[in-house]
Amino acid sequence: MAHTLAQKILQRHTDEAITDAGQIVRCRVSMVLANDITAPLAIKSFRAMGAKRVFDKDRVALVMDHFTPQKDIEAAQQVKLTREFAREMGVTHYYEGGDCGVEHALLPELGLVGPGDVVVGADSHTCTYGGLGAFATGLGSTDVAGAMALGETWFKVPPTIRATFTGTLPAYVGAKDLILTLIGAIGVDGALYRALEFDGAAIEALDVEGRMTMANMAIEAGGKAGLFAADAKTLTYCTAAGRTGDAAFSADAGAVYERELSFDVTGMTPVVACPHLPDNVKPVSEVKDVTVQQVVIGSCTNGRIGDLREAAAVLRGRKVSRDVRCIVLPATPGIWRQALREGLIETFMEAGCIVGPATCGPCLGGHMGILADGERAIATTNRNFKGRMGSLESEVYLSGPATAAASAVTGVITDPSTL
Amino acid sequence: MAHTLAQKILQRHTDEAITDAGQIVRCRVSMVLANDITAPLAIKSFRAMGAKRVFDKDRVALVMDHFTPQKDIEAAQQVKLTREFAREMGVTHYYEGGDCGVEHALLPELGLVGPGDVVVGADSHTCTYGGLGAFATGLGSTDVAGAMALGETWFKVPPTIRATFTGTLPAYVGAKDLILTLIGAIGVDGALYRALEFDGAAIEALDVEGRMTMANMAIEAGGKAGLFAADAKTLTYCTAAGRTGDAAFSADAGAVYERELSFDVTGMTPVVACPHLPDNVKPVSEVKDVTVQQVVIGSCTNGRIGDLREAAAVLRGRKVSRDVRCIVLPATPGIWRQALREGLIETFMEAGCIVGPATCGPCLGGHMGILADGERAIATTNRNFKGRMGSLESEVYLSGPATAAASAVTGVITDPSTL
Repeated sequence: MAHTLAQKILQRHTDEAITDAGQIVRCRVSMVLANDITAPLAIKSFRAMGAKRVFDKDRVALVMDHFTPQKDIEAAQQVKLTREFAREMGVTHYYEGGDCGVEHALLPELGLVGPGDVVVGADSHTCTYGGLGAFATGLGSTDVAGAMALGETWFKVPPTIRATFTGTLPAYVGAKDLILTLIGAIGVDGALYRALEFDGAAIEALDVEGRMTMANMAIEAGGKAGLFAADAKTLTYCTAAGRTGDAAFSADAGAVYERELSFDVTGMTPVVACPHLPDNVKPVSEVKDVTVQQVVIGSCTNGRIGDLREAAAVLRGRKVSRDVRCIVLPATPGIWRQALREGLIETFMEAGCIVGPATCGPCLGGHMGILADGERAIATTNRNFKGRMGSLESEVYLSGPATAAASAVTGVITDPSTL
Repeated sequence: MAHTLAQKILQRHTDEAITDAGQIVRCRVSMVLANDITAPLAIKSFRAMGAKRVFDKDRVALVMDHFTPQKDIEAAQQVKLTREFAREMGVTHYYEGGDCGVEHALLPELGLVGPGDVVVGADSHTCTYGGLGAFATGLGSTDVAGAMALGETWFKVPPTIRATFTGTLPAYVGAKDLILTLIGAIGVDGALYRALEFDGAAIEALDVEGRMTMANMAIEAGGKAGLFAADAKTLTYCTAAGRTGDAAFSADAGAVYERELSFDVTGMTPVVACPHLPDNVKPVSEVKDVTVQQVVIGSCTNGRIGDLREAAAVLRGRKVSRDVRCIVLPATPGIWRQALREGLIETFMEAGCIVGPATCGPCLGGHMGILADGERAIATTNRNFKGRMGSLESEVYLSGPATAAASAVTGVITDPSTL
């Protein structure tokens, strides 16, 4: 049977022949992930199921990134519980403190995930690693506990929706604009339990970081996974991250897709997802006179070095509006240091941004930039549900880094090409 | 009558002749301060007393520094309420976001406080400005509301304790060690409602930042104020901060002191205040095998550029212990940018620190480094009361920046001279 990317990867991790979407298969997992919110729940389930050790101490990653540096006593207790579990189990990849970053930026950077892997994590944005050609998906904490103990889990093989992006990306239009455009077209349930497979000239032209941005938001259309072929760019990225033995691959010719969509990116303009769903997508030019009190540049979606470069290019020599707090959170210490070396941190500080540590921060209403009643933010994050970043009476607009940075300067949601 | 520093400054701000300690006088205030925790309370009192406007829109400072970037919805609402009050009243010195820093570092840097001023603030560490030769003290939010409305308040003229520091400071011994030594000697109520006046060759040798560090902790001995003469160093600092018209002054010859203490700093070694009071002070060398999970370098006490230089000198070319989260919070954006220019931020990041924004952070258990049960921190902050930085079952040791940095490297409380 000709396989889509999702089927092809799952096939490598199961002894059963994958012949149909909908089939239920047991798969070996390459990496199991949990964070400071979900690990304590997974650990509780792990204990409850009588598990004594993790299946492979090098294949479990526990990343304390959401409410750290520890936001409050409860957050500190969660981290402590996870730290003690990691020590007891001898887990190699436990991250807290100065070597810790946002999980979905950290794991690729450390070479812990790569092409052909099956990765499960107790976090919905685990799908990010599809940008590297991994089948990666979020599971509940109990399922993750099972995977931590057994090194395997089950999947219903998803049907695949193919999204082809043709043409050439205009200035100020990037990966975030593409994925928002797709979500706007198919809706937040448009890919429910489907794999999204991305291809086309515009996708080939994207760097691996941009592909991770797109894969990251597959879940915002309900997708089980978002997948990109592993090409030369993928291999270069993985080699730089210290991995060996990866190989390029793509979907089989003749693979069957449930649905095929095509977008021509030529002539596209930057878009934003307006409150309160990621599919409420409009060109920035159509969003008029919308003031913001906060701008957030960071997160597992858009907190990588390329994102910071894009934002800094807009902010260089300009000042953040006095009425805006512009919070920049590089997603990992590695990205933070690289931004420092390139002068991006200086650009942000000179512009009047607040530069913070590598944390999820306000993305999910955690800390470091929570909204009051009536406040509005534009953010490079991934969700704008009602109350996501604070008060139920606040609003979040989602955009790419250039649009967010331009809006920080003007205090109004702004197309960066007009600045 | 010959005046102590406290009496001399108060005399300039009242029409009544100050003749005795214990006398109650009405004084004009130079600056009134509140922060994101206390301003909302002060504003409530301000409204309740029927006040319609602040006495002088250039002499009220509202600094959103404690739970910002906004930690949670409640913090965001507090900031919003204060922001709206500031706009309504036309308050010039409202700080939030990228131009905001820890109040007691920010106001001196901006030249808003200086020698001879009377400053009242709804924050106990308002006494910091005594380092510049200001009579500065913390008041309750209601008294601050009155001062915001009237531009004056009343004081009972405090008796003064004179603390003379002679000799030459050894390496790795700084202002924090001096003030901790004093507090250790007289106890946390040793200067209750007294002014502390500092002098001697070791004090003259201190830079203005070091003097602010010492004045900052006068309250930890119960002091109403901590005061330093204004000398050439003070004037240089104030000129650099954009002030004009300041003049040097010192206590009158023949001023009457309630008590006189003398310390010879020659041969001193670094000290720490052990849990759970700032007067539980011991030489670092006597504190053996005390592991720490967290190090905090920052706060209104020790978050200035000189403090960061001291910490960076210890951390340069070294690595933070894997078992420690070392959180560095430059106290203002100005300090942050200066640290960036000098390569200190790079040093911290290369060492594996977490560098955060200008906030009070975990000092008062707010956010960005809260302790779990059984965790222990060493911090350059000012209070180590039980539960101050998180769990009631956690512990805080107080030290200067060099000792904190050395402890971050070893994971054990460490005298920096032994590293």
